[in-house]
Amino acid sequence: MQEQKQEYMRRALALAQRGAGHVNPNPMVGCVIVKDGKIIGEGWHEHIGGLHAERNAFAHCTEDCTGADLYVTLEPCCHWGRTPPCTDAVIEHKIGRVFVGCLDPNPLVAGKGAQILRDAGIEVETGVCEDECRRVNEVFFHYITHKTPFVTLKYAMTLDGKIAAHTGDSRWVTGETARRHVHETRNRLPAIMVGIGTVLEDDPLLTCRIDGGRDPIRVICDSRARTPIDSRIVQTANKIPTYIAVVGQNERTAELERHGVHILECKTKNERVDLADLMRQLGALGIDGLLLEGGSALAFSALEAGVVHRVQAYIAPKIIGGAGAKSPVGGLGFDKMVQALPLKDVTCTPMDEDFLIEGRL
Amino acid sequence: MQEQKQEYMRRALALAQRGAGHVNPNPMVGCVIVKDGKIIGEGWHEHIGGLHAERNAFAHCTEDCTGADLYVTLEPCCHWGRTPPCTDAVIEHKIGRVFVGCLDPNPLVAGKGAQILRDAGIEVETGVCEDECRRVNEVFFHYITHKTPFVTLKYAMTLDGKIAAHTGDSRWVTGETARRHVHETRNRLPAIMVGIGTVLEDDPLLTCRIDGGRDPIRVICDSRARTPIDSRIVQTANKIPTYIAVVGQNERTAELERHGVHILECKTKNERVDLADLMRQLGALGIDGLLLEGGSALAFSALEAGVVHRVQAYIAPKIIGGAGAKSPVGGLGFDKMVQALPLKDVTCTPMDEDFLIEGRL
Repeated sequence: MQEQKQEYMRRALALAQRGAGHVNPNPMVGCVIVKDGKIIGEGWHEHIGGLHAERNAFAHCTEDCTGADLYVTLEPCCHWGRTPPCTDAVIEHKIGRVFVGCLDPNPLVAGKGAQILRDAGIEVETGVCEDECRRVNEVFFHYITHKTPFVTLKYAMTLDGKIAAHTGDSRWVTGETARRHVHETRNRLPAIMVGIGTVLEDDPLLTCRIDGGRDPIRVICDSRARTPIDSRIVQTANKIPTYIAVVGQNERTAELERHGVHILECKTKNERVDLADLMRQLGALGIDGLLLEGGSALAFSALEAGVVHRVQAYIAPKIIGGAGAKSPVGGLGFDKMVQALPLKDVTCTPMDEDFLIEGRL
Repeated sequence: MQEQKQEYMRRALALAQRGAGHVNPNPMVGCVIVKDGKIIGEGWHEHIGGLHAERNAFAHCTEDCTGADLYVTLEPCCHWGRTPPCTDAVIEHKIGRVFVGCLDPNPLVAGKGAQILRDAGIEVETGVCEDECRRVNEVFFHYITHKTPFVTLKYAMTLDGKIAAHTGDSRWVTGETARRHVHETRNRLPAIMVGIGTVLEDDPLLTCRIDGGRDPIRVICDSRARTPIDSRIVQTANKIPTYIAVVGQNERTAELERHGVHILECKTKNERVDLADLMRQLGALGIDGLLLEGGSALAFSALEAGVVHRVQAYIAPKIIGGAGAKSPVGGLGFDKMVQALPLKDVTCTPMDEDFLIEGRL
């Protein structure tokens, strides 16, 4: 029975992930309805503003679901948002038992959804595949609790720890599979951030190069507003939302705004953008997840400021050498090895010739 | 049948590896004798000068081996070395069939052993678990062909590619399991090499800290003979064989010799020790394998000189940062990312919290 339950919940989880990149800042949710050992309805939260997973599953039921089991990756909501409470729908459809992946950390729900179902006489079991259900929504769980984006630091380096040759040449560190995976991440997360150094050196576009993909909102950390007007980012700012974080308004910021850039004036820390303040501002804009793509100085500032939550390191099995070649995390660095920030829940995934090592801070 | 053969050969491989660190510059070889579906004899090459694997297996046979199958990881020798040819023993013992892991690249054997057995009417199949059998003796296969040591570059770095904090502090990058694995490698390889920079910075002992372990021969690459007389290496040179590679004899090299150090005078390349020449000298001394442990400048010189054959990178899932923190491979570095040296046959092995990524150049 336990295995059977996990199998249905994993199916619901797979459905949930079909909403990736389309539901932010909502959570991804999947739902499976089972009767007499057969799946009679499936659904997921498909896009922001659309039906919740449970209601989509009901809508797709192939037979009457009276007395059926309902598997849902996240606790059903019990409040009016853009749509009516899902708990109502579960009760109306006379569901017999509800299996919940994890409780909703949203203070508006947080166990109340499960309680309402129990009060209506429905058997409720929570915590089925809980870790997996939490992990799929780590962005949402963070955002709903902290109101700042969940930040993933991403970089690609050689096996000897370089993101570029000593000359600056960096095409390409990793192979196609790893690079495509990065674009999938860009498609999944609502925003991407780089430092001004990266803009000046690489003149990147920071778009998502997947067919049918969604370009992330671009955030440039640029204390003194040095982003060139003729950079590819500014030249495309009318088409792709672009925020430049600065420490003060001036003629340059006004010029950037005339080109369609949104200026975020931030508090100052060590004469630079206070990253904690920037994260609060981005959170207030509804940005729940952010991919930090470099450069190495900004990466260290962000780690030091404690605003990074996940590290995603692509490692190419090749050696380039160079005492002067850049490494992924620069800045001053911590003084002692014991001060190094340890990652938790670390995984290593082969990506053709490369490896992706990732973990949470 | 195929699976059964592989199972016996893997058993022979496991036995072979018991000779690790005791047979250099001979290969590690294991042998299993099977009759009526039962193992009736096992043996391996235990130490240099001792019996070969086949003869050890015969010596331990629990019943008559007439008509039995013999599994051996490496082609039986057919020449007189320290011991008589193993092909003679196989024929004398009336073995019915011989399964060979891989042919011996030693030009004195190289297929002749298998031919002699066939000429004696014994059925011979070669190439059973060939890749695994070759891999276990990669040091031997290289040495017998090139007469220079098989060089493994080993380092431990953080997930952001640092071997130390910007202050130089490096205790410890990896956890206990990975560090113990390094000592097992030191126990397995006959020699270890570091550059003078590492000696001056860390004053290492470079011994094998495993109970009953064997200390490797120590090689210091020290063009200008700057190794301090009061360094721990020189102070223990009378107990542990120590070679210092220099580009010219002088008062300092004489003083080092008085303390028990062996001086290797090498050809010069860019005013430094010509590493290819040093490898030829070490090979002539019978050193078939060498662990290159740093520092980062020597690592790049060795890679550039083409004398490195394997890279063994331990990666700790933590971030220390620091634009000035040392990375594992320094020097000038290659100019373009496409020039980076790719590794082949790359594997990634978890070691508790850390990972070991290794591959061949």
